[in-house]
Amino acid sequence: MTLDRMFHALSDGTRRAMIERLVRNPASVSDLARPFEMSLPAVVQHLAVLEAAGLVTSQKIGRVRTVQLAPEALTAAGTWIGQQRIPAERQLDRLGDLLSTTPER
Amino acid sequence: MTLDRMFHALSDGTRRAMIERLVRNPASVSDLARPFEMSLPAVVQHLAVLEAAGLVTSQKIGRVRTVQLAPEALTAAGTWIGQQRIPAERQLDRLGDLLSTTPER
Repeated sequence: MTLDRMFHALSDGTRRAMIERLVRNPASVSDLARPFEMSLPAVVQHLAVLEAAGLVTSQKIGRVRTVQLAPEALTAAGTWIGQQRIPAERQLDRLGDLLSTTPER
Repeated sequence: MTLDRMFHALSDGTRRAMIERLVRNPASVSDLARPFEMSLPAVVQHLAVLEAAGLVTSQKIGRVRTVQLAPEALTAAGTWIGQQRIPAERQLDRLGDLLSTTPER
């Protein structure tokens, strides 16, 4: 399921840092690897998770693979989160319940 | 890390369905279990993941444990996603690049 894969991809700090980097502009795999103390294969593995989740795309030109953020990348995840808002009036109700059950001093 | 745990918690369809249910109102563990074809221990395990991520809280009164969505639950995850927007003008630049490299017919 897309949301499963997307949220799983985001559950790792290295992968989130890669996305934060790619928001600025596309980057080669070695550019992306530079800030991290990890092997290139480990970086490639993280990128594969991001790509499988539809969060980035990549293309190889000559010997350089360039990675870019997919334009609509995080829309589905953001939309799902946005839908889970508790209506404000209900939150106030709960506050009211809480206050009315607080023992008097 | 909080975002790690939060996104991991959201990477499972059953846990997302529990959150969608709890947006309506708090529920007992057995209410939450009802729509799912899974054992009660499995449901409790999913709830533990949600609670560890700070997405829900629960309290036991007598023999009934009631679960409710944490009011600010998804704010951190939503904020992080919101920050990863590619500025619109940059997206247009990319479109421009793409158009200018499209071979003429």
